[in-house]
Amino acid sequence: MPFIDPIELERVIDAALTEDLSGGDVTTDALIPRHIEATARFVPRTPGIIAGLDVARAVFARVDSSVGFTPHLVDGDFVEGGETVAIVSGSLAAILRCERIALNFMQRMSGIASITSRFVKAVEDLDTVIVDTRKTAPGLRALDKAAVVAGGGRNHRRNLSDGVLIKDNHIAALQAEGLGLQQIIRRARAQAPHTVKIEVEVESLDEIPAALDGGADIVMLDNMSIEEMRSGVEMCRGRCLTEASGNVSLESVREIAETGVDMISVGALTHSVTALDIGLDFEQPD
Amino acid sequence: MPFIDPIELERVIDAALTEDLSGGDVTTDALIPRHIEATARFVPRTPGIIAGLDVARAVFARVDSSVGFTPHLVDGDFVEGGETVAIVSGSLAAILRCERIALNFMQRMSGIASITSRFVKAVEDLDTVIVDTRKTAPGLRALDKAAVVAGGGRNHRRNLSDGVLIKDNHIAALQAEGLGLQQIIRRARAQAPHTVKIEVEVESLDEIPAALDGGADIVMLDNMSIEEMRSGVEMCRGRCLTEASGNVSLESVREIAETGVDMISVGALTHSVTALDIGLDFEQPD
Amino acid sequence: MPFIDPIELERVIDAALTEDLSGGDVTTDALIPRHIEATARFVPRTPGIIAGLDVARAVFARVDSSVGFTPHLVDGDFVEGGETVAIVSGSLAAILRCERIALNFMQRMSGIASITSRFVKAVEDLDTVIVDTRKTAPGLRALDKAAVVAGGGRNHRRNLSDGVLIKDNHIAALQAEGLGLQQIIRRARAQAPHTVKIEVEVESLDEIPAALDGGADIVMLDNMSIEEMRSGVEMCRGRCLTEASGNVSLESVREIAETGVDMISVGALTHSVTALDIGLDFEQPD
Amino acid sequence: MPFIDPIELERVIDAALTEDLSGGDVTTDALIPRHIEATARFVPRTPGIIAGLDVARAVFARVDSSVGFTPHLVDGDFVEGGETVAIVSGSLAAILRCERIALNFMQRMSGIASITSRFVKAVEDLDTVIVDTRKTAPGLRALDKAAVVAGGGRNHRRNLSDGVLIKDNHIAALQAEGLGLQQIIRRARAQAPHTVKIEVEVESLDEIPAALDGGADIVMLDNMSIEEMRSGVEMCRGRCLTEASGNVSLESVREIAETGVDMISVGALTHSVTALDIGLDFEQPD
Amino acid sequence: MPFIDPIELERVIDAALTEDLSGGDVTTDALIPRHIEATARFVPRTPGIIAGLDVARAVFARVDSSVGFTPHLVDGDFVEGGETVAIVSGSLAAILRCERIALNFMQRMSGIASITSRFVKAVEDLDTVIVDTRKTAPGLRALDKAAVVAGGGRNHRRNLSDGVLIKDNHIAALQAEGLGLQQIIRRARAQAPHTVKIEVEVESLDEIPAALDGGADIVMLDNMSIEEMRSGVEMCRGRCLTEASGNVSLESVREIAETGVDMISVGALTHSVTALDIGLDFEQPD
Amino acid sequence: MPFIDPIELERVIDAALTEDLSGGDVTTDALIPRHIEATARFVPRTPGIIAGLDVARAVFARVDSSVGFTPHLVDGDFVEGGETVAIVSGSLAAILRCERIALNFMQRMSGIASITSRFVKAVEDLDTVIVDTRKTAPGLRALDKAAVVAGGGRNHRRNLSDGVLIKDNHIAALQAEGLGLQQIIRRARAQAPHTVKIEVEVESLDEIPAALDGGADIVMLDNMSIEEMRSGVEMCRGRCLTEASGNVSLESVREIAETGVDMISVGALTHSVTALDIGLDFEQPD
Repeated sequence: MPFIDPIELERVIDAALTEDLSGGDVTTDALIPRHIEATARFVPRTPGIIAGLDVARAVFARVDSSVGFTPHLVDGDFVEGGETVAIVSGSLAAILRCERIALNFMQRMSGIASITSRFVKAVEDLDTVIVDTRKTAPGLRALDKAAVVAGGGRNHRRNLSDGVLIKDNHIAALQAEGLGLQQIIRRARAQAPHTVKIEVEVESLDEIPAALDGGADIVMLDNMSIEEMRSGVEMCRGRCLTEASGNVSLESVREIAETGVDMISVGALTHSVTALDIGLDFEQPD
Repeated sequence: MPFIDPIELERVIDAALTEDLSGGDVTTDALIPRHIEATARFVPRTPGIIAGLDVARAVFARVDSSVGFTPHLVDGDFVEGGETVAIVSGSLAAILRCERIALNFMQRMSGIASITSRFVKAVEDLDTVIVDTRKTAPGLRALDKAAVVAGGGRNHRRNLSDGVLIKDNHIAALQAEGLGLQQIIRRARAQAPHTVKIEVEVESLDEIPAALDGGADIVMLDNMSIEEMRSGVEMCRGRCLTEASGNVSLESVREIAETGVDMISVGALTHSVTALDIGLDFEQPD
Repeated sequence: MPFIDPIELERVIDAALTEDLSGGDVTTDALIPRHIEATARFVPRTPGIIAGLDVARAVFARVDSSVGFTPHLVDGDFVEGGETVAIVSGSLAAILRCERIALNFMQRMSGIASITSRFVKAVEDLDTVIVDTRKTAPGLRALDKAAVVAGGGRNHRRNLSDGVLIKDNHIAALQAEGLGLQQIIRRARAQAPHTVKIEVEVESLDEIPAALDGGADIVMLDNMSIEEMRSGVEMCRGRCLTEASGNVSLESVREIAETGVDMISVGALTHSVTALDIGLDFEQPD
Repeated sequence: MPFIDPIELERVIDAALTEDLSGGDVTTDALIPRHIEATARFVPRTPGIIAGLDVARAVFARVDSSVGFTPHLVDGDFVEGGETVAIVSGSLAAILRCERIALNFMQRMSGIASITSRFVKAVEDLDTVIVDTRKTAPGLRALDKAAVVAGGGRNHRRNLSDGVLIKDNHIAALQAEGLGLQQIIRRARAQAPHTVKIEVEVESLDEIPAALDGGADIVMLDNMSIEEMRSGVEMCRGRCLTEASGNVSLESVREIAETGVDMISVGALTHSVTALDIGLDFEQPD
Repeated sequence: MPFIDPIELERVIDAALTEDLSGGDVTTDALIPRHIEATARFVPRTPGIIAGLDVARAVFARVDSSVGFTPHLVDGDFVEGGETVAIVSGSLAAILRCERIALNFMQRMSGIASITSRFVKAVEDLDTVIVDTRKTAPGLRALDKAAVVAGGGRNHRRNLSDGVLIKDNHIAALQAEGLGLQQIIRRARAQAPHTVKIEVEVESLDEIPAALDGGADIVMLDNMSIEEMRSGVEMCRGRCLTEASGNVSLESVREIAETGVDMISVGALTHSVTALDIGLDFEQPD
Repeated sequence: MPFIDPIELERVIDAALTEDLSGGDVTTDALIPRHIEATARFVPRTPGIIAGLDVARAVFARVDSSVGFTPHLVDGDFVEGGETVAIVSGSLAAILRCERIALNFMQRMSGIASITSRFVKAVEDLDTVIVDTRKTAPGLRALDKAAVVAGGGRNHRRNLSDGVLIKDNHIAALQAEGLGLQQIIRRARAQAPHTVKIEVEVESLDEIPAALDGGADIVMLDNMSIEEMRSGVEMCRGRCLTEASGNVSLESVREIAETGVDMISVGALTHSVTALDIGLDFEQPD
C-alpha cells in the first residue's frame, strides 16, 4: 500500500469503528468470556487483487493492541480465491468486534484494486496509463486511491489543489465575460501555483489549437468518438499529454487506448465498486 | 430522507470537503472572479431513485451559506432521467468547489436507493421485506442506511448494539466450551439488554428446534437452498420471524421471498454500489 | 468493566484531562523535580462497590505511559473501606497531574455501582431486575452504564436507537391525529427496525389491553400504585414483559418488585450520584 | 449563566447528543410525521434554583434551528415548583429527540445550583464565601462551575493552571528532599506565574507560621476541628486568606463559617449532585 | 484574501480561541455588565499591507454572532498607519474576549503581507516572481500562504503533494543505490501523478545538464553565487523554469532577480515574521 | 521543556502534519524504496538557544514509531552553531516526510528561546524578570510559552483565566458607568476567583494611588517614560508588584529594568520571531 498519512488513517478507522461499536457489541458482550482466544484466516472467495491489509491490521490494533495480524500477501497481489491472505489471532471477543469493519475496508479496497487491474491488463502492452478520478466514496479518498495503485492504476488529481483542470463550465463562464480559451489558460498559468500542470477539457477538436497555443500541459478529450480521439491525439502529439475521459468500460478501453492517448481516466474504478468477496474463517476451537 | 443526526452529518460532510478542498481549488481560485453568479441543475442521466438531496444541500451551505439550493423532488422519488431534481444558484466559484462532493454523495446514495428499489419491486406483492446489512462504506453507514430507506427497503441492525445476532462463530466457540444452542440463547437473553431482540443464524434445519426452544426472536436462514428455506420457514411459523441471508441476487430474490421468509437481507445494496449517473448542468451565462 | 469502545473512552478521558491540564499544572511544574518517583494507593474511605479501575489506568497511561498501575481488585468488587484497590507508581509529577481526574472517574463510577448494588441487593431473592435509564451525566453515558453493570444492575436503552419506547407524548400527539394505541404500536412495528423490541408506557390499567392487542413486547407501568402495578402485571403475564418506572427509592423498591414486575428502572442510579469517597495515599518517601 | 466558551459548549452538547442520537431515534422516526408541531413547558416538580437554561436552548438549536426556546426565568432564579421556567415550541419530532438531553443538562445544573444555594444561605449573614472544588463530573467542569455561580457560590481553581495549591503530597515529597515549608513556598513564588496566588494546605496549626513566613497568599485549613480552625484563622488574620476544607456538610457549615474563615470549599456541590426534578409538559394537541 | 477552506478556517480559529478562552475571561466576566455596547476601530500604527480581515471577522462571529464587523479596506491594501481598517461594534464583553485573538491573526498575516510586498516591490519591473516556502508556523499554513498572496507574492508548494521536489537528500540516497540524476527524474515522472511538475534542486552547474535531460520542469538553483545563477539560468533557458533559493534578503533579491531566474523563493516571508503593529481603539463611551 | 499537556501536543502536531502530509509526499512516494535507512543530524547554523527537541521527537514518532530520535542537548542549552543537537535514524522515507515539520517546530521555538535569552541576559544582574505576553501564534501558545521558559524567561498569563488584568478599555467603559478605579478593582476582587491576582494597567502616575487603594496586586506601567516608570515603581514599592509594558527592545530593556520594575513584558518574544536557522544533515549513504 502506498504511504497513507497516519492521522488520516486513524480518522477513517475511528469513524468506521465509532459508527459500529460505540454502543458496544451486545452479542459478544453477553456471550463471549474474556479468556477465549481464537485464530482466523482472511480468505477470498473469488479471484481478484488484494488491497487494504494494512488498514485491516490497524483496525484490530485500534481495538485491542494484543491481537496479532500476520499478512501472507501484500497489497497488489493476485488471489485465485481460497488462499489465506492474512491470519488474525488473539482475543475472540476483539476479533468478533472488528471483523465486519476490517472486512468492509478490505472488500472495498480489494474490489477497487481488482477492477483497476482488469482495466490495466486490457491495455498492458500499450503505453496508455489507467488513472482514477475524484469520484470516490466521501471520506475514503486516500484509501480508494491507494487501492487503485494496488491494482496497477495511477492516480489523477487527489483533490482540487494538486493540478489545474479547466473544465467546460470554467470556460463557458469566462467566455461569457469575453475571454477566449487561450487567454483563460494564460490566466491560469499566471495565477495558479507554478508546481502544478494545467489540463484543459475539450469537447471538440476545434478547441485543441487554442488549448495548445495557450500552453496547456494536458488536453482532456472528453466524450469523444474513437475517430475524434485519434485526431485529437495526433494534433497534440509532441506538444502536450492527452487524456481520454467519459464512460470508459472494459469493452471500450482497449480501442480507446489504441488511439494513442497517454491516459484514460475511469470514474467507475471508485464510484461503482463491486466488493471482492472475502470471508473470515475461524479455526475450529479444540 | 430519514432523520440523520446533524452532528454525524456535519462530520461526514466535513471529512469529504476536507479531503477535496483543504488545499484550495487552484483552478477556480485562479480563474473565476468573485462577482460571477451561476445557476445549475442536477439532472440524472438514467432512470433510478433519487436520494441525498438534503446532504447535497448541506454541502453547499457548509462552504457558502448564500448559495441557494431548491429541490424539485424528494428522496425516494423515481426519475426517468433528464428531469431537474434540484437547482443550485449563487456564487459560481462556490458551486464549482462543491460540485464533485455534492455529486459524489448524491450518486452513491441514489445508486443505493435505485438498486434497493429494484429488489423491493421484485417482491412487492409479497409480505417479505428487503433489509440491508452492516456491509456499508466505512464512515458512511448513516447515509447508506438512509438511502436504503429512500429506496423502499428497511434497515437491519445499524450497529453492534441495536440487536443481538448470534452467528456461527459465536456458537462454535461456545459449543467448544460445552454449551448447547439453547443455553447460548438463554445466556444472551439473560445478559443482553431486554430492549433488543435475539436473532440466531442457522446453517441447517437441524439447528432450528434448539433455536426455537432457546427462545430466539428471529432465525436467520443462512445460505440455504430454496427447499431448505421453505422447510425452515415452516418450522418457525408462529414462533419467530425468519430472515433469509446469503448471496441474494435480483434473479433469486423472488423465489426466496416465495418461501415465506419475513425478511431478506441483501449485502449488495451497500457493499457493491453502482452510482446513479447524475450531472450538474450549468445554465448558459447570458 | 464491560467493554467500552476505546475511541469513546479516549474521547472522554481527553475531555477530562484537557479541561484540567491544558494550561499545565503550575504547582507541580514549579515544585516537583523530574527525578522524583512515588508510589500511591487508591483507598476507599467507606464501604461500597468499586468501578472505573480501567478508566483510572487509562488516565495515567494517557499522560505518562511509564506510570505503572496495578489493580488489586476488579470492577464490581465490594470494599469495606481501608483496603488498597490499586497501586500507582512512577513519576511523582505525572501522578499528581492525573490524581484528581482519575479520582473523579473512579468516585463517580463507584458511587453509581454502590447505589445500584443496594437496589439489587434489596430484591436479590426475587426475579425482578434493576435497570438504569438515559438520565446520565451528559457525555458520560458509556461509563455511567458500565458502572451500573459493575453494581449488578442491567442496562436499559443505551440511546434512542436500541429500543422503541412509546411514551405518553408520542401517544397524545398521535391520538390527536386520530390514531388509537393499537394502531400506534402497529405503525411502530411496521416502521421501526425489526431487531428492537417495542415498549409502551401506560399510565392507567385501561391502556393495557390495547397495548397487548397492538403487540407490545414490554409494558412500562409508569407512576402507578402498588395495587395498580400488581393488577397490571397480572394483565400482562405471559404476553409481554413489564417494567415499573417512576420515583423508585430504596424504601419502595422491594414492595414494587413483589408485584412481580420483570424490571424496575431507577433514574437515581445515575442522575443523583453520591460519589464513593476514595483517596490516593502516597507512601512516605524514604 | 456566566460566559461559557462557545466552542467548549458546542463540544459538550455534541458529545451528549452523539451518545444519545447518533443512531437515530427509532421511536420518533417510526411514529411522528414531520408536520406535527408542539409546545411544551419546562416545569420543576420541587423547589430549587434553576440553571442551564442557555444550555438547553443550545441543545434544541443544534438539532433544529427552527425550534423556539423562550425562557421565563434566568439562571439563578428560585423556583417553588410548578411554574414554567421555559417554553419550547416547534417540530414535535425535534423536541422529542432533544428532550432527555436538555433535561439531563438542566437537572444536573439546577441540582448543583440548588445545593449551592442552601450552603450559601446558611452563611449569608457572615463574610464567609462558599466555593467549589475540582471534583466535577469529567468533561462537565465548565457547566458544573457555572451552576455553582448560579447558586450563589464562587469558583475555586477551574483547573491546575489558575492558582498554585501546595498540598500535603507536594510538601512530603520535597521535605524528603530536604526542603522546609518556607523554602517550598519560595520556590513556588520564584517559579510559578506571578499572576496566580499561592495557597498552602496545612493539616496542623504548627505548619501555619512557616506558611506565613514563606509568603502564602492563602492557607487552607484541611480537616481541622472547629477549635483548631478558629486558632488558625486567628494566626492568619491580616496576613493571608484562609480556606476551610474537608467534609463540610449543611449541618456543619455555619459553625465552620463562624470561625471567621474567608472561604469554605465544598466538594459535594459537584461530586454528589442530586438532580433537580424538572419535567417537560407538552400542551395538549388541539 | 484567497479562498480558505471554511472547515480549516474554523479549525484554526477554534484552536486559537480555545487556548485563550476555554477557562473564561475572568476580568471581563467580573467587570463588564451584559448591557454595555461598544464600537472600536482596527488601526495600524505603522505602514504596511493589511491581511486577515476575514479571519478577524470570523473570530468575532464565532464568539458572538451579533457583533458587527465592517471592513473599510480589503486584504492586500496598503496602509500608512493611523487609518481605520475595520470597525467592530456590539457587546463590549464579546469584543474584549476576542480582541487579542483577532489581533494576533491580523498582525501576523499583515506582517507576512508587508514583508512580501517589500520583496515584490524590489523586483516589480522584472519578470521574476517572489514565492513562499513550506517554512510556515505549524498549523497556520493556509493563513500564512494567503497572507503571501495578499502581499503580492505567489505560492510555492502548499504541501508535499502538489509538486515533486527532488532535493539533495533524495538524490544522494538514490545515487548510493546506483541511480544517476536522469534516472531519478525519470522514475519520478513514471511514478508521480502526471498533474504535478517535477522540480530538481541543483547545487552546482554540473548537475544541470542531467536535470534537463531527465526532463525536469523546474530547476532550483540552491545557494549559488550570482555568477553561477546567471549561468544556470542561461543553461535552462527555453527548456525549463528556474528558481533561486537560499538566504535571500531584501538586499540581495534584486541582484538575484536580474540573473533572469523565473522565481525566487524566500523562507523568511513566513518563518521569521515581524508582526504589523495594529491596535484596537475603542470609541469613548458617551 | 516544561510539561505540555500531551493531548494539546498531539493536537498541534496532528494539525501540522495534516496540512503538509495528508495528500501524501509525492516525491518520496515516487522515489524512495522502503528498505533505505538513514541517519541525520539536527545542526544549528548560527548561535542561539535550542528548544523544541521533545516536539521534534514526537513528530517523527507520530509518523513512524520505529524512527529513533536521540537528543544530544536539552531545551534551553546554548549552541554556537555547527554542533549536533539531536540524531534521527530509521526509515529514510519517514525522515524525509517529517523533516520540514520537525524543523518548523524547532526553528520557531529555538528562535523564541534565543531572543528571550538575549533579553534575559541584558538584565541578568538585576532583579527584574522578563515575561512574555498573549501575543503568540494562534494555536501555538503552549509551545511558544514553553520556548520562552527555555530561553530563561517567565510566563505571564497563559490565557484569559489565570489572572485578572484590568486594562484601559475596561476602566474607560466602567468610568462611563460612573465607577472609579478603586471601585472597579474592588468589584474584580469580589467577583473574580480568589486564586488569581489582580493587575491594573495605568497609563499615568495619577492613577497609581487609586490602584493601590483599590488593592491591586500588580500595577502595569504602560508605555511610560523611564522617568515616569521610576516614579511609579517608587509609589508602588512594598505595596504591590510592578510590570513595565510597551515596545520594549533590546536597546531599552536594561534602562527599563534599572527603574526597579519587577517584571518587563515583551510582546516581541513571540509576535515577531526570527527562526533559528537549523538544518538536518544526512550522513552520506555508504
